[in-house]
Amino acid sequence: MEIKTPTLLVDKEKAIGNIQGMLDKAQKSNAQLRPHFKTHFSTEIGNWFRDLGIKKCTVSSVSMANYFANQGWDDITIAFPYNLLEHEEINRLANQVSLNVLIESIESLGHLKEHIKSEIGYFIKIDVGTHRTGIDPRKEDLISDLVKGSNDIIRFKGYLSHAGHTYGCRDLDSIQWIFDGSVKVLSELKSKFGGIISYGDTPTASLIDDFSFCDEMRPGNFVFYDWMQHQIGSCTTDQIAVCLACPIVAIHKDRNEIVVYGGAVHLSKEMVLEKDIVGREHKCFGKMVRLTESGWQTKVFGNVERLSQEHGIIKLSDEEIAHVKVGDTIGILPVHSCLTADLQGHYLSTTGDRIEKMTKQ
Amino acid sequence: MEIKTPTLLVDKEKAIGNIQGMLDKAQKSNAQLRPHFKTHFSTEIGNWFRDLGIKKCTVSSVSMANYFANQGWDDITIAFPYNLLEHEEINRLANQVSLNVLIESIESLGHLKEHIKSEIGYFIKIDVGTHRTGIDPRKEDLISDLVKGSNDIIRFKGYLSHAGHTYGCRDLDSIQWIFDGSVKVLSELKSKFGGIISYGDTPTASLIDDFSFCDEMRPGNFVFYDWMQHQIGSCTTDQIAVCLACPIVAIHKDRNEIVVYGGAVHLSKEMVLEKDIVGREHKCFGKMVRLTESGWQTKVFGNVERLSQEHGIIKLSDEEIAHVKVGDTIGILPVHSCLTADLQGHYLSTTGDRIEKMTKQ
Repeated sequence: MEIKTPTLLVDKEKAIGNIQGMLDKAQKSNAQLRPHFKTHFSTEIGNWFRDLGIKKCTVSSVSMANYFANQGWDDITIAFPYNLLEHEEINRLANQVSLNVLIESIESLGHLKEHIKSEIGYFIKIDVGTHRTGIDPRKEDLISDLVKGSNDIIRFKGYLSHAGHTYGCRDLDSIQWIFDGSVKVLSELKSKFGGIISYGDTPTASLIDDFSFCDEMRPGNFVFYDWMQHQIGSCTTDQIAVCLACPIVAIHKDRNEIVVYGGAVHLSKEMVLEKDIVGREHKCFGKMVRLTESGWQTKVFGNVERLSQEHGIIKLSDEEIAHVKVGDTIGILPVHSCLTADLQGHYLSTTGDRIEKMTKQ
Repeated sequence: MEIKTPTLLVDKEKAIGNIQGMLDKAQKSNAQLRPHFKTHFSTEIGNWFRDLGIKKCTVSSVSMANYFANQGWDDITIAFPYNLLEHEEINRLANQVSLNVLIESIESLGHLKEHIKSEIGYFIKIDVGTHRTGIDPRKEDLISDLVKGSNDIIRFKGYLSHAGHTYGCRDLDSIQWIFDGSVKVLSELKSKFGGIISYGDTPTASLIDDFSFCDEMRPGNFVFYDWMQHQIGSCTTDQIAVCLACPIVAIHKDRNEIVVYGGAVHLSKEMVLEKDIVGREHKCFGKMVRLTESGWQTKVFGNVERLSQEHGIIKLSDEEIAHVKVGDTIGILPVHSCLTADLQGHYLSTTGDRIEKMTKQ
């Protein structure tokens, strides 16, 4: 692999292992796997899912739905509140594939019924505690009205939830507590008003074994995982399937720092806080690893302490810094693989092949 | 302007006002203006500079240098440590345009001299206190050796500094203090070893009046400015020349929040902290404004408190939230315009014209 500039490496074997593991869990739980494709943005990587028998996917925008629909994905949920300004595009797409959108108000459902002429499914977004979008599950009158809004064209499918607050958890007990609460409220809604349950965030989907309460699992990040997921406990470092290869451009031994070509426009400014052995808090924008002929070592050492637009600053010990030189290429495990992937024009497989992805127009 | 999805609006009149103001300051100081183009990434916006007589530019990568060189920019400084892995591309480019690169070690200069066959200039990067890249100005032996490395092909130009630590300042006194220190060390180097001084970061270039100590000013962000620069004191809200137009997709009156289509993949996760009237700290990922027929109002109200991949969560007062509905489009002044601009496929002028920009391949 000849790498000259920051390049996101994808380890296909690890990614497929992650997909297979999640598929096994879904099948054991008798739930469908409808993975979220907002992590990889790539029809080629979508094919890795398809090769394992997965036929449905989730996306986060109409443009992403179009991108995957044009590559043969014909059962797509746009897991984002119905953007009524895009009703023409949604109508066209609903005519082309089996499409679901999210509804959380009478007004949005009314707009959908007025403007969409092709058959379309809608999920009611239920807020299980993240407080980002969705309806408080105690508002049963509103939920009941939304369920009753179903007709032959605009069809009620069920309840969709994303427990995004698990990203703030750092132990299994808190994730289990969030999960148990979600199971309770969603199961009650299902038994009262019918419909299916679509659930899934990567921490829960990775750490909880039994998903038989739901009909459909919808995690996304798990295909790549990242350092934040490792910090949560969702994955081992071995399972992280992406790594940003970065050239070293400067070395500052007097302050134990190296400067790499690889900054906020390559990694994103997503950050986690970590404590060192004396309890001091450090920002972490990624973790350094060594590259190998066919990928990267999983032993993590240097911390990416600062990022500017194109620069990354990595702290190394005296011993570690003695072994690097300007012109070497090192790897960085990203903090948040979805945002890092969004920033790339393409990926490179660890076998040296270019992997195309969706780009912004 | 028909806007359906998150779209970065650029107010050309404001941008040109910002450029003209900086050009006036440079001319009064008898310094050249070599603006950094890593903020706007656009040859069309580059032309707004050219129309005012600016003929030199700064970029942060070889690919950006290529992009602008292909549109007729023939005097370019790559203000990033020489990436020796790209020596072939740099050699080609140096053959095409007048090119400068940054050097901060004997090893990099040696590599440059060995591999670059076309005439090229080099600046010695001096660390004036940011501690990101550059040489401690007290290391005069090293600096002297780097100056002496000049020959007919690889030509020493001078000293280049970026006082990035001004981004942490929130008052003029601290910026003045950083500036005075830089003037002292850079002027001493110039008088000892010759060469020119290239200096510039947007806070200093906006707040300090007299730049006659330097030969070249190199700010970038000032063309657009942003909420962080406003917080620093570099600009008024009237001067901010970009605004992300975002559709409202959900309203949660019970917690005074609206949800917009506009998230980390549109704004970036750059964030500043702000205190409310009772001293509580809030994250700010952008500030909401109202859109008008021909741009946006400069009165700022809602705060973007949280961002996920595609969602922005904005806090509004009871009165403000009463005046918005799902399907409205609002504006967000970004925290860091360079990173927001990087995330766009194109921009839209406030007169409704598409503005093309560099995209990732």
